[in-house]
Amino acid sequence: VDGEVYLVGAGPGDPDLLTFRGLHLLRKADTVLYDRLVAPEILALAREDAELIYVGKARDRHTLPQDNINDLLVHYAREGKKVCRLKGGDPFIFGRGGEELEEVVAAGIPFQVVPGITAASGCAAYAGIPLTHRDHAQSVRFVTGHRKDGSVDLNWAGLVAEQETLVFYMGLVGLREICARLIEHGRAADTPVALVSRGTTDAQEVITGTLDDLADRIEGREIHAPTLIIVGSVVSLHPRYRWFGAADTGGA
Amino acid sequence: VDGEVYLVGAGPGDPDLLTFRGLHLLRKADTVLYDRLVAPEILALAREDAELIYVGKARDRHTLPQDNINDLLVHYAREGKKVCRLKGGDPFIFGRGGEELEEVVAAGIPFQVVPGITAASGCAAYAGIPLTHRDHAQSVRFVTGHRKDGSVDLNWAGLVAEQETLVFYMGLVGLREICARLIEHGRAADTPVALVSRGTTDAQEVITGTLDDLADRIEGREIHAPTLIIVGSVVSLHPRYRWFGAADTGGA
Repeated sequence: VDGEVYLVGAGPGDPDLLTFRGLHLLRKADTVLYDRLVAPEILALAREDAELIYVGKARDRHTLPQDNINDLLVHYAREGKKVCRLKGGDPFIFGRGGEELEEVVAAGIPFQVVPGITAASGCAAYAGIPLTHRDHAQSVRFVTGHRKDGSVDLNWAGLVAEQETLVFYMGLVGLREICARLIEHGRAADTPVALVSRGTTDAQEVITGTLDDLADRIEGREIHAPTLIIVGSVVSLHPRYRWFGAADTGGA
Repeated sequence: VDGEVYLVGAGPGDPDLLTFRGLHLLRKADTVLYDRLVAPEILALAREDAELIYVGKARDRHTLPQDNINDLLVHYAREGKKVCRLKGGDPFIFGRGGEELEEVVAAGIPFQVVPGITAASGCAAYAGIPLTHRDHAQSVRFVTGHRKDGSVDLNWAGLVAEQETLVFYMGLVGLREICARLIEHGRAADTPVALVSRGTTDAQEVITGTLDDLADRIEGREIHAPTLIIVGSVVSLHPRYRWFGAADTGGA
């Protein structure tokens, strides 16, 4: 049996942000396990005879619990299949790629990992917001804004360094709390913030404001997932550096 | 005149990590301005009639000061050229992409930005080190380990959060200082650390150790640029998750 697993990052939305290596391994695959966030144009690049299996989450229910994905990877590889696990973004940055490989590694199945353009990198480029910049930020930090038990559980005191860009993945639901906590712990209330919805796709929308007013600005508006929140002085470059798409609601 | 500028990230080393969008814009370019870290295989994809101009740094001298690159972009675009500015990694993560676009933006020249796989993402995937992981790290931070006036100038106290992966770009020269300061400010001395040299290329080398002993481990060894340093409990996954290349010196 010569089954293998390819863990491939499909990028943040624009299908043209797939890498050549990602395509190469996708084309080798007999079986493709994919997420909700993988662009249909990328799935269409799989071999015609490949079996495509959806393992993503629907909005409020898990289609497959994490353990089952691990089991499936091992199951198909043991059948001798080349299995491509296609994930939105980058598999090793909030992609649970390490977790999904656990049983593959334990079973001694050969595997490869292909990085993808992570949402922070893609949204920054397409929104015209450099994540680092001589005059604004000497470092950048990716954090999950995901809520646990109804609140965002983060070490807030450690998150308020000036000259650092913060990027929150999965932060829309907790946006008001995130902004309030950052102010509470010392970040300036007028720190610019951008909410990027469906970044890098034709439907990209960038809404800017400040820590103080962004939550009010989006109150009652329909915001489509996936979203990303960028906090920091670099966001002030957006009005001049924006180049992609038209839907853009400013204010900063 | 319909000159344009394309700021394109060429990725971390492996030429197959170029994106389709990056290739598309490179193929449109009349003029290509490139860095030392762009793979020759990628440059070879430029149009045969394109003019290729090296604007990278040599080891100890600047081939072109930053301002000249800005001027060149404007200069060629004003001649009506499609100008591709090819940079290693991602242009908006320690790539000075924002700085280089300043005069292009000021001059009102149309431009686009294509993200690239940043070194942290590429090295993590090819070294088998997830940057985030349920059991190890809920966030990741990219920092420049670049020395100014002979020492690494960072807010060390803010850098010692447990459950966070730290990635130092350009940190080799300051490695001993970085490790010492992190311990001094409270990070455990046995925190695993990986030094990745020429990551994602066939010459990739991963040297692991701890904050306490990595500097000694590499003492007197020749380490080739570019390098990246990954600090955090996730590095402990490397011995099991490594899959690429053979040169690998462990110990963690």
